[in-house]
Amino acid sequence: MWIRATCNLKFKMGDSTPLILMLRPRSGSQQWIAREAYTLSPSVPVYEYTDIFGNLCQRMVVPAGEFSVQTSADVMTMDMMDKDPNAYFVEIQNLPDAVLLYLLPSRYCESDKFGNLARDIVDGVQLGYNQVDRICGWVRKSIRYSPGSSAFPLSAVEVNVQGEGVCRDLAHLGIALCRGISIPARLVVGFLYGLEPMDLHAWFEAYIGGRWYTFDPTEDGLRGGRLAVAYGRDAADVAIYHQFGPPAIYSDMDVRVELLDTPP
Amino acid sequence: MWIRATCNLKFKMGDSTPLILMLRPRSGSQQWIAREAYTLSPSVPVYEYTDIFGNLCQRMVVPAGEFSVQTSADVMTMDMMDKDPNAYFVEIQNLPDAVLLYLLPSRYCESDKFGNLARDIVDGVQLGYNQVDRICGWVRKSIRYSPGSSAFPLSAVEVNVQGEGVCRDLAHLGIALCRGISIPARLVVGFLYGLEPMDLHAWFEAYIGGRWYTFDPTEDGLRGGRLAVAYGRDAADVAIYHQFGPPAIYSDMDVRVELLDTPP
Amino acid sequence: MWIRATCNLKFKMGDSTPLILMLRPRSGSQQWIAREAYTLSPSVPVYEYTDIFGNLCQRMVVPAGEFSVQTSADVMTMDMMDKDPNAYFVEIQNLPDAVLLYLLPSRYCESDKFGNLARDIVDGVQLGYNQVDRICGWVRKSIRYSPGSSAFPLSAVEVNVQGEGVCRDLAHLGIALCRGISIPARLVVGFLYGLEPMDLHAWFEAYIGGRWYTFDPTEDGLRGGRLAVAYGRDAADVAIYHQFGPPAIYSDMDVRVELLDTPP
Amino acid sequence: MWIRATCNLKFKMGDSTPLILMLRPRSGSQQWIAREAYTLSPSVPVYEYTDIFGNLCQRMVVPAGEFSVQTSADVMTMDMMDKDPNAYFVEIQNLPDAVLLYLLPSRYCESDKFGNLARDIVDGVQLGYNQVDRICGWVRKSIRYSPGSSAFPLSAVEVNVQGEGVCRDLAHLGIALCRGISIPARLVVGFLYGLEPMDLHAWFEAYIGGRWYTFDPTEDGLRGGRLAVAYGRDAADVAIYHQFGPPAIYSDMDVRVELLDTPP
Repeated sequence: MWIRATCNLKFKMGDSTPLILMLRPRSGSQQWIAREAYTLSPSVPVYEYTDIFGNLCQRMVVPAGEFSVQTSADVMTMDMMDKDPNAYFVEIQNLPDAVLLYLLPSRYCESDKFGNLARDIVDGVQLGYNQVDRICGWVRKSIRYSPGSSAFPLSAVEVNVQGEGVCRDLAHLGIALCRGISIPARLVVGFLYGLEPMDLHAWFEAYIGGRWYTFDPTEDGLRGGRLAVAYGRDAADVAIYHQFGPPAIYSDMDVRVELLDTPP
Repeated sequence: MWIRATCNLKFKMGDSTPLILMLRPRSGSQQWIAREAYTLSPSVPVYEYTDIFGNLCQRMVVPAGEFSVQTSADVMTMDMMDKDPNAYFVEIQNLPDAVLLYLLPSRYCESDKFGNLARDIVDGVQLGYNQVDRICGWVRKSIRYSPGSSAFPLSAVEVNVQGEGVCRDLAHLGIALCRGISIPARLVVGFLYGLEPMDLHAWFEAYIGGRWYTFDPTEDGLRGGRLAVAYGRDAADVAIYHQFGPPAIYSDMDVRVELLDTPP
Repeated sequence: MWIRATCNLKFKMGDSTPLILMLRPRSGSQQWIAREAYTLSPSVPVYEYTDIFGNLCQRMVVPAGEFSVQTSADVMTMDMMDKDPNAYFVEIQNLPDAVLLYLLPSRYCESDKFGNLARDIVDGVQLGYNQVDRICGWVRKSIRYSPGSSAFPLSAVEVNVQGEGVCRDLAHLGIALCRGISIPARLVVGFLYGLEPMDLHAWFEAYIGGRWYTFDPTEDGLRGGRLAVAYGRDAADVAIYHQFGPPAIYSDMDVRVELLDTPP
Repeated sequence: MWIRATCNLKFKMGDSTPLILMLRPRSGSQQWIAREAYTLSPSVPVYEYTDIFGNLCQRMVVPAGEFSVQTSADVMTMDMMDKDPNAYFVEIQNLPDAVLLYLLPSRYCESDKFGNLARDIVDGVQLGYNQVDRICGWVRKSIRYSPGSSAFPLSAVEVNVQGEGVCRDLAHLGIALCRGISIPARLVVGFLYGLEPMDLHAWFEAYIGGRWYTFDPTEDGLRGGRLAVAYGRDAADVAIYHQFGPPAIYSDMDVRVELLDTPP
C-alpha cells in the first residue's frame, strides 16, 4: 500500500537554539521512500549525519522566534507486517555483533529488573517469536494504553507501576521484558496509517529467526501501513527532535497519514 | 540558489540482473535536499544501505525487459563554491583518521606514479590551497576536456598519455596529482547547473585547511549550482549504477538541471 | 611511567554460558600497550569484535565447570593526567557527531533529572573545565566513596539518594550532572596504580575544549598511572564481562597494578 | 598449533617522518592472540585507530636518525586452513553490504579487465569454492613465484604480463580473477610458519558459502600456521608501514616464525 505521511512542527523559541531532528525516513527492506519533502522556515543552514543506529539526523541552530518544520513522504509500505510463529530464538553466541547492543539495559528499558517477570510471562511458551508475542499480549492486557497520558517518557519500571501509558511507554515495557529473556529489542518511532487519535507512533522490533520482526503492544492486530522514521534503544536515543538549551516558549505538532490511491 | 536536478535512466535487460544505484543525494554542509522523488518502473523490492564513503546505495534485482529509474531533487545549493587561497596544507600526522584513506592510490588514481610530476607542477607554490589550484589549472591546460570521448573510465596514467578525456578522467588526474604531494583528494559525482552538454558531472575535492574544498578541472571558474550525489576514491567506488552480470541490451540516461525561481 | 596491570577472573559455571569480555585495552593518545598477555583456561574459541564505543570485545562460550581468564598488560601511561582550567565549553552545534551520543540520558545516568541540581552546583562558575571540576568536587563532598558498598551499579538518582557508592556509582552521578548542563560525558573502566583497596576502577571523561579530559570523583588529586580498558555511556555499556544465562555458581576477580622500573 | 611471529623493522630517516604501521594483529575466528609485544625505539607518542577494513593502525611521527620497531605475537592458529568444495557462490543480491566493496576493481586488482580470462579459466567448474580453487591453481601454474623479484607491488595486469612476481603480486592476480566473476576477494598480509625464504607473506580470501575462505596461490597445499595481520582490497590498502614524505635513507626488515611447544 502507498501512504503519504506528513508532519508539521512549530516552535517559538525565546533564544537561538541548537536542534537535532530525526525526520528523514530511510528506505529499507519494508518501506520505499518514493517522494519526500522537507521544509524549514525560516531557512537555516543544516548539516546531516548518520548516527550509530543508522538514523539520518539533521543538525541546525534555529533563531529566536517562530520556526516551523514540514516533512512529507510518499511511501510504499507493507499491507500486513510479517509474522512468523516459527521464528526461532537466536542464541547469544550466534547474534550478529551489531545486535548485541540491543540486549543491554538502557535509560527507559531497565531490563536488568525484568528477568523474573519476563520468565513468568513466557512460562511454557516456545522459544522465539511466540515469547515476544506473549509479552506483547501481556503488556496490552496489563497496561492501559492511554494516548496523551504522559508528556515525558516513562521507563519500563514506571509504566509497570502506573499501569498506563502512551505507545512509547508500552513499547519500553515490551522491550525491557524481551531483553530480560535475552531477546534483542529496539524502539521504532514512525507513522501508522489509521491510528486513532492520529499522532506519531512508537512500537518495537525484536530480533528472532535471524532478522528483526515488528511488534506493537498498543494495537490488537499487527496492522501494516507503517513508516518507520527512527530506531534506537529507547526514547532517549530516538526523539523526533532533540532540543538543547532553554525550553521552547511554545511547540506544536500536527501529524497526518493518508492513503494514496495511486503511486506518486 | 535553488535547482531541480532530474535523472532518467532506462535499461533493457536480457535477464534479471542485480543492480546497485547511488542516486539518492544526501543533505550536507553545502546542499539541502528539500524535495526528492525516486521512481522505479516496474516497481521492485529495494534495500538501501550506507557504504563506507557515506553514500546511500539502493540494492535491487531488476527483471528481464525494460526497466526505468527516475529521480528528481529540489536542492538549495551554493551560488559560488568556497575558495580560500589561505587554506593550509594539513600535515599527515594531523589528518583525521577517516581522511587518510584518500591519500592512498586507487584503481583510477595511481598516485604512486605521480609524485615527480606533481612536485614539478607545484614548484614554488605556497603549500595548501594554491597547490591544488595550480594542479587544476595544469590539468585544464594539458588535457583536452572532450565530453563523450571515453565510455569507460580512464585512469590518471591513461588520461595523461591520451591528452584528452571526460570530466571524470580529468578529475582522476587531478586527484592522483594531489595525492602525489600528500594532499587527500576524492571524486565527486553529481549535477552541475548550466553544464554544456548537460550530463552527469564529476569533479573532485581536496582536504586542506581542515575541511574539503571543491575543485573542478573542467570548468574555468568554480561555478556553484552543484548537487553532489556520491563520493569515493575514484570512479571504481562511485558509479551512479553498478550493474552486475551480463551487460544490458540497452541503456540510456537523460539528465536535466533547472533553476527554480522560488523554493519548492 | 610504566605500569603492569593484571587481572585474574575465575568462574564456576553450572552450565555452558555465553560470555563477552572487554579486557583487551587499546593504545590511545594517553597510553601505549607495549606488552600484553591474555590467557583462557580451558582454551575456548574466541571471536573478537569492536563495539560502537571502540572497545575490543571477546565473545566466547565457556563450558560448565571452572573457567579462568588472566590478562596482563605493560603500559606506558601518564604520570599526571592533563588538566586545563581554560578548556572551553563546546557549544552543541560545534560538537563532533560522534560525541552527541554522550549528551543523552542512559540507563544509569538519568541526566534528564539533573538539570536543576547541576545548574545550582555550577552557579557562577566559568563555562567549561571548571564546571566539571566543580561537579567532581561536589560529588566527592556529597557522596561517601565506599568501596564494596554496592554489588550492582547504582544509577545517578539512586546514588544521590543513598549518599554513598563505589567508584562507578560516583562516576554515574558526575556524568549525569555534566550531561545535565550539556557537557558530554562518558564512563571509563580500567586500572589505577596505587588504588586502595586495589580493584578495577571507574572514572569518567568530559568533552571540553575540543577533546576528552579525565575526571575522577573518588580521588582528590587527578593521579596518573591509569590504564583505560573500556569506554561507554555508563556501566550498562561497559562491563568487564557480560555474562548471559544462569548466574555463575562462583566468580572471583583479582587485580594488581605494579610499577615497572624499566620499560618492558 | 601455537606460533610465535616476530618482526623487526629498522629505519634510518633523514628527517622526521610521519608513519602509519599496521603491525598489531587482531584476534578473530581463526586466530587468538595470547601474548603480544610492541616496542618502538626511541619511544615516540603513538595514536592507534581502526581503519575501514578493521585493521588496527598505529600513527606516529618518527624523528630523524635510526628508528626501530619490534613486534612479537604468540598466537593459537589453525593447523590446517578450512576448505569446503561445497561452499556455494553467493549471488550478488545476497552478499552482505560490507562485502560489496570487495567486488570493485582496485589499484592493483583491475578486475574490470579480467572478466573474459576468468570465465575461460573456470569454464565448466561448479560455481563457488571450486572456481576460486581453479583460479588459484591457474595462477600457481601460470605465474612463477619468485620471492624478491619485485620491490614495488605489481598489479594483476602487470604480473600477468611479466609472468612472475612475489606472493603479493600473485595474490593480486588471484583477487582480480575472482572479482572478474563476481566473487568478492581481499588481500591478507601476515605471517606463515615454514615459509621459505622467511618473510612477511601475502595471500587472499574469497567470500563464498557465506564466509571468507583462505586461498594461497604461492603454496601447493593450504598450510596452516598463519597469522593474519592486515586486510584490504589490495596492497594499496594494506602496507605493513605507510611512510609519507622523503624516503628513508635505509630500511630493513627481519621476520621470524617459530613453533611453540607449549601455549605461552
